[in-house]
Amino acid sequence: MAVWSYLSVRKRVQEIVAIARPGDTVSRVFDVSIVVLILLNVAAMIFESVASVCEAMDGAFAAFEYVSVIVFSLEYLLRVWSCVEDPRYAHPVFGRLRFARTPLALIDLLAVLPFYLPFVNVDLRMLRILRIMRIARLAKLGRYSDSLQTLGRVVATKKEQLISTVFILLILLVIAACLMYYAENEMQPDRFSSIPMAMWWAVTTLTTVGYGDVLPVTLIGRLMGALIAILGIGMFALPTGILGAGFVEEMERRKQPRCCPHCGKELPK
Amino acid sequence: MAVWSYLSVRKRVQEIVAIARPGDTVSRVFDVSIVVLILLNVAAMIFESVASVCEAMDGAFAAFEYVSVIVFSLEYLLRVWSCVEDPRYAHPVFGRLRFARTPLALIDLLAVLPFYLPFVNVDLRMLRILRIMRIARLAKLGRYSDSLQTLGRVVATKKEQLISTVFILLILLVIAACLMYYAENEMQPDRFSSIPMAMWWAVTTLTTVGYGDVLPVTLIGRLMGALIAILGIGMFALPTGILGAGFVEEMERRKQPRCCPHCGKELPK
Amino acid sequence: MAVWSYLSVRKRVQEIVAIARPGDTVSRVFDVSIVVLILLNVAAMIFESVASVCEAMDGAFAAFEYVSVIVFSLEYLLRVWSCVEDPRYAHPVFGRLRFARTPLALIDLLAVLPFYLPFVNVDLRMLRILRIMRIARLAKLGRYSDSLQTLGRVVATKKEQLISTVFILLILLVIAACLMYYAENEMQPDRFSSIPMAMWWAVTTLTTVGYGDVLPVTLIGRLMGALIAILGIGMFALPTGILGAGFVEEMERRKQPRCCPHCGKELPK
Amino acid sequence: MAVWSYLSVRKRVQEIVAIARPGDTVSRVFDVSIVVLILLNVAAMIFESVASVCEAMDGAFAAFEYVSVIVFSLEYLLRVWSCVEDPRYAHPVFGRLRFARTPLALIDLLAVLPFYLPFVNVDLRMLRILRIMRIARLAKLGRYSDSLQTLGRVVATKKEQLISTVFILLILLVIAACLMYYAENEMQPDRFSSIPMAMWWAVTTLTTVGYGDVLPVTLIGRLMGALIAILGIGMFALPTGILGAGFVEEMERRKQPRCCPHCGKELPK
Repeated sequence: MAVWSYLSVRKRVQEIVAIARPGDTVSRVFDVSIVVLILLNVAAMIFESVASVCEAMDGAFAAFEYVSVIVFSLEYLLRVWSCVEDPRYAHPVFGRLRFARTPLALIDLLAVLPFYLPFVNVDLRMLRILRIMRIARLAKLGRYSDSLQTLGRVVATKKEQLISTVFILLILLVIAACLMYYAENEMQPDRFSSIPMAMWWAVTTLTTVGYGDVLPVTLIGRLMGALIAILGIGMFALPTGILGAGFVEEMERRKQPRCCPHCGKELPK
Repeated sequence: MAVWSYLSVRKRVQEIVAIARPGDTVSRVFDVSIVVLILLNVAAMIFESVASVCEAMDGAFAAFEYVSVIVFSLEYLLRVWSCVEDPRYAHPVFGRLRFARTPLALIDLLAVLPFYLPFVNVDLRMLRILRIMRIARLAKLGRYSDSLQTLGRVVATKKEQLISTVFILLILLVIAACLMYYAENEMQPDRFSSIPMAMWWAVTTLTTVGYGDVLPVTLIGRLMGALIAILGIGMFALPTGILGAGFVEEMERRKQPRCCPHCGKELPK
Repeated sequence: MAVWSYLSVRKRVQEIVAIARPGDTVSRVFDVSIVVLILLNVAAMIFESVASVCEAMDGAFAAFEYVSVIVFSLEYLLRVWSCVEDPRYAHPVFGRLRFARTPLALIDLLAVLPFYLPFVNVDLRMLRILRIMRIARLAKLGRYSDSLQTLGRVVATKKEQLISTVFILLILLVIAACLMYYAENEMQPDRFSSIPMAMWWAVTTLTTVGYGDVLPVTLIGRLMGALIAILGIGMFALPTGILGAGFVEEMERRKQPRCCPHCGKELPK
Repeated sequence: MAVWSYLSVRKRVQEIVAIARPGDTVSRVFDVSIVVLILLNVAAMIFESVASVCEAMDGAFAAFEYVSVIVFSLEYLLRVWSCVEDPRYAHPVFGRLRFARTPLALIDLLAVLPFYLPFVNVDLRMLRILRIMRIARLAKLGRYSDSLQTLGRVVATKKEQLISTVFILLILLVIAACLMYYAENEMQPDRFSSIPMAMWWAVTTLTTVGYGDVLPVTLIGRLMGALIAILGIGMFALPTGILGAGFVEEMERRKQPRCCPHCGKELPK
């Protein structure tokens, strides 16, 4: 006797577009379809850049582009329309506006907006850069994974310390680049032409990437280079140690408060 | 008064081909011999590829190939024949089929099958690729090490989080490759010719391998390259932190049994 | 009715130049201004090295140099003058001398001293090297971050073990360089011309930077190179493991105060 | 009234050559002198390889060589002579032989032996290789550090798991090299000329050294290269996680059993 009223439809739509609850097959199918479409979009963007593939299948890419923009637009509209069923966004106007301001909703909007904007016809390079935002659709996938959220929580807990590590890395980078600039500028004025150029060398060395396009050749330069490469090991040790402790913490936080099976009392952790 | 009946022989064969129990010298010798033969096979495959060695010892390699295929075939047949002694594969037909479907048994089969297939005479390149499967014999070694199984258990416990890390790595890869493609395509149309090519650069940078064959040269490209190289440190920190916590967990799980502070009885782990 | 006597002014100045206490807005503004000025100085030094920027804005850089040296000099004098308010440096002469000998005060002095020294007019290269000390101003930033101090404390706790790791790295470096020198010297007398040159290769390999400018080419050289590269993984594992344990320790030290299970009273950490 | 008998001298010599006990200044001076001489020897070996330094100071190096070999020989003889004071090596003949068989004593012997062997005059290349053993003197330094022994203990506790990691690395190496050989051999027959050559590539990639001298260029080769580079991250994560857990374990093992300051009873860990 369920009346398919406007409100009950909206409630059902909200359930479908939200993350599926166990047993809700329709919502689950919707979630999976959207994820697959996002992945297909990313694949299309990647293969479109290959000249040979692009020429052969230009029409197919354009058609797929149209279809997916329509689906994502519909999905976005359904989300905004039905979000008022969520008590947090209950107000018909301000609730929807607040929902539209959440990062995930903004990403959803930015993923389709470039297609509708009129000035995309003006500058093709602009379009290209806007199109990169499409990758943001991938970020939606995070919604669907429990394990990703654990990683996110650990990183979030240690955010401050990780930023400090990046800060130390930047200080080391500037010091290393300045010293190397003064050491190598005379011998290699084209490669170590300025401190920003020396910073490119410092990044590739401190992160141990080591492309080998910019290199110290003087004795003092190589001594400093060796020191900086060794400090690079420390650069790996700091965030790894921080996140390691974070994962140990998370692991301990998840341990159930255990009870003694003999006397039934709760055990100290 | 042991009757050397068919059944008792099969039981003994099953004991020998299974991992040796302490004190069972015959089974232990069998295990070690198989491992040594596997290692010799791998060595043969490696040295066969060296032109000078191959020419000098072509006959020896062929003979060794014959001998080891015969030994491995016999071993496989003995395993399949005797597996019904294991209660899990008790049924003479379906039990053996189920045993043949286990990963280790499949590997054993694939390691000898290419030799018997008739079409190996058709295409030599096909033979080559099938021959790679022979390395699968190495995976058998895992059966014989206790410490390897500990590592395997830790990795298995954290499998989900590790896959999430690879997933994050892939997302970063795609984003990095897309941005770099748009930044560098104009300056280096031959090196950053497409997004898949830019992904090759992104892999070598995010993993800090840094071959240096594909490199950003523009200012914006280098800025992004620096950012991606720094994120590469994070790519090392995540799995390391996850596995670190896994090993701490494993270590704690092995600790002495604790006693309840309320009733004094021993607690289950 | 506060009398603005010499002493009360000195007290207030000392409060302002020290790290701001919560609620002390003036001191906070002072702290932030100094940090911003330090960062601007670093930025100026970096961009001054770019030829095109330097030519266009030479006057602006010189003026900014004058202004910031004056501000930093004033700051240094205020710190030395007011430090006697700190009970540790209470004596008007010896207290100030002891304050001037602290690392942070020495850095503050070295950051402005080169500007006043007369011999800067003699040798421009000398000036350049002295100017690098200016980066020392960045080290002041450490004063202002809580999270940086946590990192510093963990590193300080494990200082001895980390130094041992560097010591092991140096031993491996010397051994690797000597072996590689004897292996590769004959084939590549220009690249592996001496053990110090081989050490440059060993550093880039053990730290996994791998520029690729110096490389083994002989069979024995590559075998040793492979071994050293694998040991390089261990070089990362040691400091990471040490710091990981340090962060776990720090994390546990911060936990909730526990209660004694015998008498129920709170335990000191 | 101490009689300077043969025995009391031997006892004193044994005390001096052993690691100094707190307060024993003579023994401490001896220890430090030996360490300094070892370091000078290493420095001499390094600088002797530099052509310009070697020519200018050839006589000085030879003289230093003579002096240090005499000192190290005397030290070795004193150690062997006095070792019988140690209850473990009490027997005048067998005790000394057992002492001479300890790794440290063997290293001491190998460090001076090449100098006395007659055949050093026969082949200069032989001399060179024997001279490398001189680096063994560095290993003596381990005796003098407490913190190094902690590291050694952690590594020793996890030895089995670390070896398993190296074993996994070797399996991955062989598989990666075989696959890459079949993928790249046709396109780059000179670089991927055999599986051992492909293994050199695989080592530089799995350890993320990435020299860039051997590189995949085909599509399938790059796909596999990317996969192997990502597995390289795992290669860092495994030993780091193992050692991380080892350091946490060591840290917990050192925690004193604490007592409650209120009731004096021992607290559970």
